[in-house]
Amino acid sequence: MTSIEWVAGKVRFIDQTRLPADEILVETSDYRVVGDAIRQLKIRGAPAIGVAAAFAVLLAVRDQSIASRKEFEKELNSAMEFLSQTRPTAINLFSALTRMKGAYLSAGRADLAFIRDRLLSEARAIQEEDKEACRKIGQYGAGLIAPGSSVLTHCNTGTLATAGEGTAQSVITTAARQNRIARVFADETRPLFQGARLTAWELLKKNIDVTLITDSTAAYLMQQRKIDLVLVGADRIAANGDTANKIGTYSLAVLAERHAIPFYVAAPRSTIDRMTKTGGDIPVEQRDEREVTHVAGIRIAAEGVKVYAPAFDVTPHQLISAIITDAGVIRPPFSEAIAGLWPASAGRTMGAR
Amino acid sequence: MTSIEWVAGKVRFIDQTRLPADEILVETSDYRVVGDAIRQLKIRGAPAIGVAAAFAVLLAVRDQSIASRKEFEKELNSAMEFLSQTRPTAINLFSALTRMKGAYLSAGRADLAFIRDRLLSEARAIQEEDKEACRKIGQYGAGLIAPGSSVLTHCNTGTLATAGEGTAQSVITTAARQNRIARVFADETRPLFQGARLTAWELLKKNIDVTLITDSTAAYLMQQRKIDLVLVGADRIAANGDTANKIGTYSLAVLAERHAIPFYVAAPRSTIDRMTKTGGDIPVEQRDEREVTHVAGIRIAAEGVKVYAPAFDVTPHQLISAIITDAGVIRPPFSEAIAGLWPASAGRTMGAR
Repeated sequence: MTSIEWVAGKVRFIDQTRLPADEILVETSDYRVVGDAIRQLKIRGAPAIGVAAAFAVLLAVRDQSIASRKEFEKELNSAMEFLSQTRPTAINLFSALTRMKGAYLSAGRADLAFIRDRLLSEARAIQEEDKEACRKIGQYGAGLIAPGSSVLTHCNTGTLATAGEGTAQSVITTAARQNRIARVFADETRPLFQGARLTAWELLKKNIDVTLITDSTAAYLMQQRKIDLVLVGADRIAANGDTANKIGTYSLAVLAERHAIPFYVAAPRSTIDRMTKTGGDIPVEQRDEREVTHVAGIRIAAEGVKVYAPAFDVTPHQLISAIITDAGVIRPPFSEAIAGLWPASAGRTMGAR
Repeated sequence: MTSIEWVAGKVRFIDQTRLPADEILVETSDYRVVGDAIRQLKIRGAPAIGVAAAFAVLLAVRDQSIASRKEFEKELNSAMEFLSQTRPTAINLFSALTRMKGAYLSAGRADLAFIRDRLLSEARAIQEEDKEACRKIGQYGAGLIAPGSSVLTHCNTGTLATAGEGTAQSVITTAARQNRIARVFADETRPLFQGARLTAWELLKKNIDVTLITDSTAAYLMQQRKIDLVLVGADRIAANGDTANKIGTYSLAVLAERHAIPFYVAAPRSTIDRMTKTGGDIPVEQRDEREVTHVAGIRIAAEGVKVYAPAFDVTPHQLISAIITDAGVIRPPFSEAIAGLWPASAGRTMGAR
């Protein structure tokens, strides 16, 4: 299963809001459909959002009736503007758009056919790099897990959320192949039940022992010493290691510290935003209150009640034991470790020694 | 609104599983219907369960065709046995049954009509004492709340959960009348949404500013300094102050300590079980996994996933700032403070001075 694919000039994606009850593949040549899918969480997971946005840019300019450079650029820009408005927190969206813009600019005065090829190559590169990043995250992360471990995870960080095997979930599946995983506890992840619907579904398919819990049961499991480590993904990691992730992540980090349980974040470098200094600078998306008041279209909450529905929270770097990236596992102090994750700055650091 | 009433020889209760969409009153002369209602959470909240069980005992022996003392006692005992099996954690259930048994025994060799009157008086006393306890808890607790406070609460501790104005919720409503409450954040309280369905509904009716959140949003609110205190109820408090309450309570207690926010438990003395030494001795009920996998009859979770569904967790006394009882607010060390809550032992303590 692949969450996003480029098939014969169209974007094909699985509608994640309908899983696991219905496996519906959507195929579209309209970038707005992709953008709306991102906004509506039909496509979700920071890396998957990045890949989808890259292909969506391509959809915007693939119409062969676009003849002039000016028209091409206008379409490109309005698609980028539209896509950039879909969700504010996951940095992969913006970095994918920036890369696509860069690919366009680097093509210089070439003809439109060449530019289209160049954009397709760039989108495919974003996809392939993410797939490879998932593989490496799995390998690096599995090394942290002792045989017989019980892992707690939150939200969905698997095949659906990425172009590959996942982030935190790739660590789990890789470690499971090495017989290191005794069991996984999956937080159901209110309000949209990504844990109950998607993570449980993916892990069951992979024959990994998974037990579903409500989000607030995690603390009680920790108290009973039934959790050996917590593994989560990320939507944006600031330059100091502060991490925005699905609402409920900060809670788990505090609880893990209290119970002396390691708390690991797994994310590709594309999720790290070196331009954002600290977590306080990360915009946190507020979602529609219906996501809390209704389940499957049925109103649960009392009529007229106000709702506070942030989609994410920010975990301060002090609560993170390590960040598992595609370039290795980094530990505190994160500011230095993060700066060292890219070859250029690593070179600079080494040169200074 | 009254959650449980004795009306012309029958028990009348509101079916809490159907709220707030439907306000359905059930009237029954069958104690098994009351017992099943407790098991199915149609009647819930530790004090309300105690009151319902007391009246249910009466239903079991009200049949005028019961002529012999032996037959009467047989009915009484089988009803008590049945009712005691409904839910294991809330101590009010067992203390109500013990009181009813005591009332029966104290009636000695009196005739059955007299004994029935005696049992009705005892059940009414349990109800009236709880109503009065709610009032006192509200008064004592309100004194702890500074004007302009934002309160976080969990589950439902209101009119529905008791015979009166509630436990933690009585503190809120009393403090609100004294203009001390700026706003209440209500945890939705998965899996059965007592916060979203019942607490939000009750507080809206009382014109108290209430905002609904998913359970794992509480930590993020605390991090933003939007919570001044946490107020919860209890299903059983051990002799050392360890408190069993709705799953998710322990999590809130850890988070409150981390953010230096007072964490208060509000409960009548009838919820304190001096025979249970510590929280480790409190039996924690496991609920049907369907309560987690399904919402409003619709399957949410992936088919085949295992579920861990404890109804309660246990908060160690070290995390509790104070317990608000009907005999006053007590603070650590709780073992001594709890022993001093009853006149006899208070007398002994005073005598020893």
